[in-house]
Amino acid sequence: MTETPDFQALFDRCSNWGRWGPDDERGALNFITPAKRVQAAGLVSDGTTVSCAHPINTAPDPDNTSPALHFMVRAGDVADGQQVTSLADHLAVSPHGVAHSHLDGLCHFFWQGQTYNGRPVGVVTSLGARANAITIGQDGIVSRGVLLDVPRALGRDWLEPDHAIRIAELEQAEALGGVRVESGDILLVRTGRQARRNAQGAWDSRAALAGLHHEVAPWVHDREVALLGCDGVSDVRAHPFTVTTHPTHVLTLVAMGIQLLDNLHLEDLATACAERNRWAFLLTVAPLKLQGGTACLVNPIALF
Amino acid sequence: MTETPDFQALFDRCSNWGRWGPDDERGALNFITPAKRVQAAGLVSDGTTVSCAHPINTAPDPDNTSPALHFMVRAGDVADGQQVTSLADHLAVSPHGVAHSHLDGLCHFFWQGQTYNGRPVGVVTSLGARANAITIGQDGIVSRGVLLDVPRALGRDWLEPDHAIRIAELEQAEALGGVRVESGDILLVRTGRQARRNAQGAWDSRAALAGLHHEVAPWVHDREVALLGCDGVSDVRAHPFTVTTHPTHVLTLVAMGIQLLDNLHLEDLATACAERNRWAFLLTVAPLKLQGGTACLVNPIALF
Amino acid sequence: MTETPDFQALFDRCSNWGRWGPDDERGALNFITPAKRVQAAGLVSDGTTVSCAHPINTAPDPDNTSPALHFMVRAGDVADGQQVTSLADHLAVSPHGVAHSHLDGLCHFFWQGQTYNGRPVGVVTSLGARANAITIGQDGIVSRGVLLDVPRALGRDWLEPDHAIRIAELEQAEALGGVRVESGDILLVRTGRQARRNAQGAWDSRAALAGLHHEVAPWVHDREVALLGCDGVSDVRAHPFTVTTHPTHVLTLVAMGIQLLDNLHLEDLATACAERNRWAFLLTVAPLKLQGGTACLVNPIALF
Amino acid sequence: MTETPDFQALFDRCSNWGRWGPDDERGALNFITPAKRVQAAGLVSDGTTVSCAHPINTAPDPDNTSPALHFMVRAGDVADGQQVTSLADHLAVSPHGVAHSHLDGLCHFFWQGQTYNGRPVGVVTSLGARANAITIGQDGIVSRGVLLDVPRALGRDWLEPDHAIRIAELEQAEALGGVRVESGDILLVRTGRQARRNAQGAWDSRAALAGLHHEVAPWVHDREVALLGCDGVSDVRAHPFTVTTHPTHVLTLVAMGIQLLDNLHLEDLATACAERNRWAFLLTVAPLKLQGGTACLVNPIALF
Repeated sequence: MTETPDFQALFDRCSNWGRWGPDDERGALNFITPAKRVQAAGLVSDGTTVSCAHPINTAPDPDNTSPALHFMVRAGDVADGQQVTSLADHLAVSPHGVAHSHLDGLCHFFWQGQTYNGRPVGVVTSLGARANAITIGQDGIVSRGVLLDVPRALGRDWLEPDHAIRIAELEQAEALGGVRVESGDILLVRTGRQARRNAQGAWDSRAALAGLHHEVAPWVHDREVALLGCDGVSDVRAHPFTVTTHPTHVLTLVAMGIQLLDNLHLEDLATACAERNRWAFLLTVAPLKLQGGTACLVNPIALF
Repeated sequence: MTETPDFQALFDRCSNWGRWGPDDERGALNFITPAKRVQAAGLVSDGTTVSCAHPINTAPDPDNTSPALHFMVRAGDVADGQQVTSLADHLAVSPHGVAHSHLDGLCHFFWQGQTYNGRPVGVVTSLGARANAITIGQDGIVSRGVLLDVPRALGRDWLEPDHAIRIAELEQAEALGGVRVESGDILLVRTGRQARRNAQGAWDSRAALAGLHHEVAPWVHDREVALLGCDGVSDVRAHPFTVTTHPTHVLTLVAMGIQLLDNLHLEDLATACAERNRWAFLLTVAPLKLQGGTACLVNPIALF
Repeated sequence: MTETPDFQALFDRCSNWGRWGPDDERGALNFITPAKRVQAAGLVSDGTTVSCAHPINTAPDPDNTSPALHFMVRAGDVADGQQVTSLADHLAVSPHGVAHSHLDGLCHFFWQGQTYNGRPVGVVTSLGARANAITIGQDGIVSRGVLLDVPRALGRDWLEPDHAIRIAELEQAEALGGVRVESGDILLVRTGRQARRNAQGAWDSRAALAGLHHEVAPWVHDREVALLGCDGVSDVRAHPFTVTTHPTHVLTLVAMGIQLLDNLHLEDLATACAERNRWAFLLTVAPLKLQGGTACLVNPIALF
Repeated sequence: MTETPDFQALFDRCSNWGRWGPDDERGALNFITPAKRVQAAGLVSDGTTVSCAHPINTAPDPDNTSPALHFMVRAGDVADGQQVTSLADHLAVSPHGVAHSHLDGLCHFFWQGQTYNGRPVGVVTSLGARANAITIGQDGIVSRGVLLDVPRALGRDWLEPDHAIRIAELEQAEALGGVRVESGDILLVRTGRQARRNAQGAWDSRAALAGLHHEVAPWVHDREVALLGCDGVSDVRAHPFTVTTHPTHVLTLVAMGIQLLDNLHLEDLATACAERNRWAFLLTVAPLKLQGGTACLVNPIALF
């Protein structure tokens, strides 16, 4: 009979609380040094850019329960005469929706009443987060990006929604790509979610979605990953824990101080990497400067 | 007595319609080649990042008539027990507002019933733009950025709101910086708007704002600028034209097919450039993939 | 073999175009005279009020694909000290959603490119409707309300979603209630949709929903109904027409100039009527004064 | 030298806490009995309806710092062919804005950390108010409405923005109208704000606005007013208190449990009353059923 793993022990194993001082809010972004950025820029060789984001999804479907709202403020139908001199639109979105490519701030999750670095959950008020907000990356998150294409490493088109990615599988992807995840890297993990959706249609990813086995968290910690992204939400469903719905979210956002890139579009990036057989690139994430925010939509751009 | 300049002649002088074929929607982004990006990445030397965006402004003031709306979906006050496992927020914005750092799509303006490359204004429907939408840069706009700091070149802290920047002043800034705007560059023009606001308080920029004299448009055309940004809106108020409220918007967006970065925050960038006496850098603009959109908020990131 | 009914003939049979002059926008609201309102007020006898609206639905479910958004602007968690002196919220809604009790304006539908009284569909611009807007009832729609409880008349708890209500069934409900729908009445038709949902769970009402058979439209016309409401959307799915998705919407909104109350909550009203064996009452609908609007949420109040 | 009045004493003098039991949330709505409604319906004599609401204001002006947002979801420009079968719109609003006619829920204000009937301010969470929400009137607030037209009673077109209405002035208006405010009435007080705005233009009403002198609160209490409305916000600016910004809001919403109708449009109502020399009428307020809400837009309808 399997015993439930001890989540608190896992949390303590991974914790970066205090690592950069009691006032730190940047968490694992501290791993990205200027030298790291220079090194990453040195990877640029052919000048191709690749987006890692989905189009903003405004259509409800089984996997988009909080569609973005996009309205025209004024369209071309009123552009006759001098009445209207420009056309404009409006966008409203709850970025955490499962269909939206977004960056999670450290305050998005909590554990035992606390957010990253021991700040009480009450710092996130109805007027916005007073600490651990999305703004820690507002000057740009720029580093070496590394894509680990797990289904490719396993010889598949995609991972099934109950697949919990193990350390060995990540290292298999590293080996295949001739790359090793190092301190300050932005790690992107492909599960092939979009490929599966294209082939089989949308499903409710809140019920079942491939992601990282909980044994991966200490590995991510030890590799000193600065930012973690996935075409899923990094968490796998289901998992053995009852004390939390999102073990990987808690271990990254709360324990390690690693922001997450959720629901990325990694198909084009995987193709670009495979074509070059090069799995590292300059990656730029440019979060909006949303003071007190818990998240924002982003369009991470890889430059080869 | 001064004669009103002939706007249509100016438009024709600058027009890129047909330059990249009748179906082209990318406009001046065509100037950014892979080789250009590689060259730009080669500028990276110390690994510092600088944001060119203002914080998202949710507070109404004389210069923010369409504040963004930022609400918490759920805050820490309901995080007790198991009821709520994460905290979340919501953002709604009409990005063209004068307080918001944003990218204008080519369909934002029109001239004589047409948008860039001769498409009728009716392509911008109440369901979104069917052409010339904000998405042309969705794979990332990455190139060499050049900052021309006009007040610095003139030995001032800022330009007064009625100041129309002339070609000679831009070239004075080039000379001072030892830089020349070339094909495929992203040109950023600083007027010192924020410095003036800090010193003298907010004013209604829709009534008065420093920007480019209309003689600059052909210069921008001939230099083959790929993207134009400003801490104002590139247009100056007032100007001599009665046929259009925004001559520079029309000449760039409609005639030349140049998207605009409006209301940038260029103070930190100007400081970073002055400290290094280097006015060129790798610049990444990562617009959200908003299909049919006329604009989106952006946070352009310079990498030195 | 059944022949498809001639929709244009039905439209012409029901049309009120020109009936109140070529400039009329009030349509069937013209049937409500001051004398009619005085008569309706005379029905008040016991002073009980009953709401005919659902709670505003913010939770996505199979029958709520466009949930309302309700956010707190500031909650009690920031009410300490003098920082915040009041608490506030924000509501955003697309009222036509199938879960929302709302009033349809005449411009919501069109037929052959025209809205009520022959106005081209182009009067509904991206800046709002220039005619046939929701505002025709902005001074209050107050008249005699009549509830026809069809499932009750048929001895059932609810009508199945494919049930097309016939004239004979409406008249059976009239007979049972000892009431007759007359000129200027607000007619409310109960299908028992909520009772079915309570018993069997939510279903996608856009696929199947009880409503009025198309033979009812001329009956509604001849009875001179001023406003039509239903716990469904008055239309039945499916129906025999291919030329329109919503025959009853087109016949009421476009041909007759009758606004519609969609997705009402009629369970409490049905109970109140049955308890009194009285099926007529003073009804007040107070639409928001939304200039150029196509619809608005409403809470119709019956007074017994 | 004037002494600052004792606000706590005033609060205690007016308090209805416990009056209807410790669990009561309806507050002064308890004064509206079925018999009261029957009496009010008996006032109907000529069948005229009058709205007491402003059009929803989407245009920023000095007195509209939080404009409503009204967008078309799809307009007539896309109605060609079978692509789109209906036209629709979207409304977003923070109802407490000073330009919006709205109903305040009891939880909108607090005093010494408590809302009406002693509930802690923490009942208003980021997920909505768990008590004292706007929904207490969701079955309709229907009673006798009484308009006291203060400027008319004083022989003026409007009250200046620093005018604090005294008891004697209200009673002068009663005498002039031959009416007396009684238990269960909905009291509407006209200051002529709109007349002044029409004549002199918009001003920032948050800085100066005519309203009730604080001596009026006990009078409102003793008359057993069920609901209080004003073309201002009932509060006067300025007032002598430093312990609260809105003494009348606190005394009504918190102490007495009286909901407020703010920013009404009372010009048409005043005209209708004057024409008939009748200052009482049937009034219906139909708040949206917004669970947990602090306010909602309303369109109160008077029936003569």
